[in-house]
Amino acid sequence: MYLAKIYVTYKPSILDPQGVVIKSALERLEYQGIEDVSQGKYFQVKLTGVDKVAVAKEVESLVEELLINHNTETYTYDLEEI
Amino acid sequence: MYLAKIYVTYKPSILDPQGVVIKSALERLEYQGIEDVSQGKYFQVKLTGVDKVAVAKEVESLVEELLINHNTETYTYDLEEI
Repeated sequence: MYLAKIYVTYKPSILDPQGVVIKSALERLEYQGIEDVSQGKYFQVKLTGVDKVAVAKEVESLVEELLINHNTETYTYDLEEI
Repeated sequence: MYLAKIYVTYKPSILDPQGVVIKSALERLEYQGIEDVSQGKYFQVKLTGVDKVAVAKEVESLVEELLINHNTETYTYDLEEI
């Protein structure tokens, strides 16, 4: 069994309105030295496969087919055996 | 400068409706062997501090003050120098 941890973020050219709002809220709360904030999505998917290469392919396929908006988002993932 | 990667997930006792919906969508799309799906939030925060211990404390403070709902969510984070 594998656990895929998938991190979805906006592409660098896309404005991240939630990040902007959080940054300004932190400044209002008097946090110092906050340079940048971005908000993305985090998915954990448990898969029952045994072959890591096949599971990795399945993860990439399901992320690209269902979880991300190709126009605005990009992703990375880690795959660990559990 | 440090980059904090913050992973917010539901507590284990809390129903994750988005995860349930994604799992059933993947099954409809005929993905095999999807055991479990959960959706959380992923934040990247860049901080200008130099002392790692102080920056870690600031990250914990800002997450607990602004980013999570203590009733339903929990979090982990990584801190890397950039």
